[in-house]
Amino acid sequence: MVRWTREELDAWPSRKRARTVNSLSGFKSATLVGSVDMNGVHNLSVVSSVVHLGSNPAQMGMVLRPPGDDAHTYKNLMATGQCTFSHIGVDWVAKAHQCSARYPADVSEFDAVGLTPCGTDEGWKAPAVSEARVRMGLTLAEDMVLPNRCHFMVLDVQWVEVDEQALAKDGYVDLGKAKTAAVSGLDGYHDTRHLGRLSYAKTDRDVDVLEDVLKGWPDVE
Amino acid sequence: MVRWTREELDAWPSRKRARTVNSLSGFKSATLVGSVDMNGVHNLSVVSSVVHLGSNPAQMGMVLRPPGDDAHTYKNLMATGQCTFSHIGVDWVAKAHQCSARYPADVSEFDAVGLTPCGTDEGWKAPAVSEARVRMGLTLAEDMVLPNRCHFMVLDVQWVEVDEQALAKDGYVDLGKAKTAAVSGLDGYHDTRHLGRLSYAKTDRDVDVLEDVLKGWPDVE
Repeated sequence: MVRWTREELDAWPSRKRARTVNSLSGFKSATLVGSVDMNGVHNLSVVSSVVHLGSNPAQMGMVLRPPGDDAHTYKNLMATGQCTFSHIGVDWVAKAHQCSARYPADVSEFDAVGLTPCGTDEGWKAPAVSEARVRMGLTLAEDMVLPNRCHFMVLDVQWVEVDEQALAKDGYVDLGKAKTAAVSGLDGYHDTRHLGRLSYAKTDRDVDVLEDVLKGWPDVE
Repeated sequence: MVRWTREELDAWPSRKRARTVNSLSGFKSATLVGSVDMNGVHNLSVVSSVVHLGSNPAQMGMVLRPPGDDAHTYKNLMATGQCTFSHIGVDWVAKAHQCSARYPADVSEFDAVGLTPCGTDEGWKAPAVSEARVRMGLTLAEDMVLPNRCHFMVLDVQWVEVDEQALAKDGYVDLGKAKTAAVSGLDGYHDTRHLGRLSYAKTDRDVDVLEDVLKGWPDVE
């Protein structure tokens, strides 16, 4: 093992430190955040900081960098109160990653990279990604400023669309079957191999593999 | 695709809704959080909500449930100001998962499940997991209460230990080589397959695979 102290890390070149520290939080969700500005221009940005906050009510959080001129997602979310999350698929990670380029505000990343907007109607303006097998619409519940001036956005889940092939009878979504990618560091993308689901842990017995789920995925109820 | 509205999700049985909504945030980090109480008793808990906040200074966040009687991690972190993150390894996920059982406060999960504490010395009391190939010590920077009464803990990275086999010359840590697991939903564990690292995206060209990294991993500098 190599060991570094905080002081040593602080002395590193900033890009190298960013690559290392971004890797230390473990595997991350690979999400395209969809939003729309007041002129109707669609926006997509890659976010790897989506985190589950609660299921009752269904809430997600995400970390956004300190808002600057290019903060299209933040500005659109503040202006419209809406965004979408679309899971990046292992078969289109390069298209998704290309959305992290600094396109001007009047360019839709959907058009620029070749993805298809969906999910909008009279009452819902923020576009999701048709190619994604898990996607959802969210509304802003709270905008919290973190000590490092990043923003932690608390979001209420308003609707969800999931590929039924990935859905287990008990509610679990098999993200491998949904072809969801995982991210590491700033730029690493990963497919996954399911090791199994483990039973609810109790102090008086060892955990079991939930065989009924692993042997054959049940149909949707 | 199946579609649910917020109202439909709200009407589901709570365990099923928890399984689904916990799956919707995508792949999650698989972390054991180590801490110690004022009597010197070690604690380990499974957390899948670790998120990268920044690299300058190096900061991580994690979501903890509303603190109740069993909130050993929260209480220890508030009392000592310290905790550790250890990446759960794909070869010991069952031991790690067993740490989520409700052991009494005077029982060390290290002893109960058979993991080895490390990383403590005169100045650092919170134990890390020797079996982990990526681990770090963190101090509490801020305790933020979320709208759903969960707590978002902002933590400063004080030291890091990484298996040098997993370390690329440019600072990237290959979490596959570090045998780090990924989590889905409440109880799913996953190994990973590296799809590649992608170049910094620019608007005037397509993204490239960073071949130099994928063809052969360079030694540590």
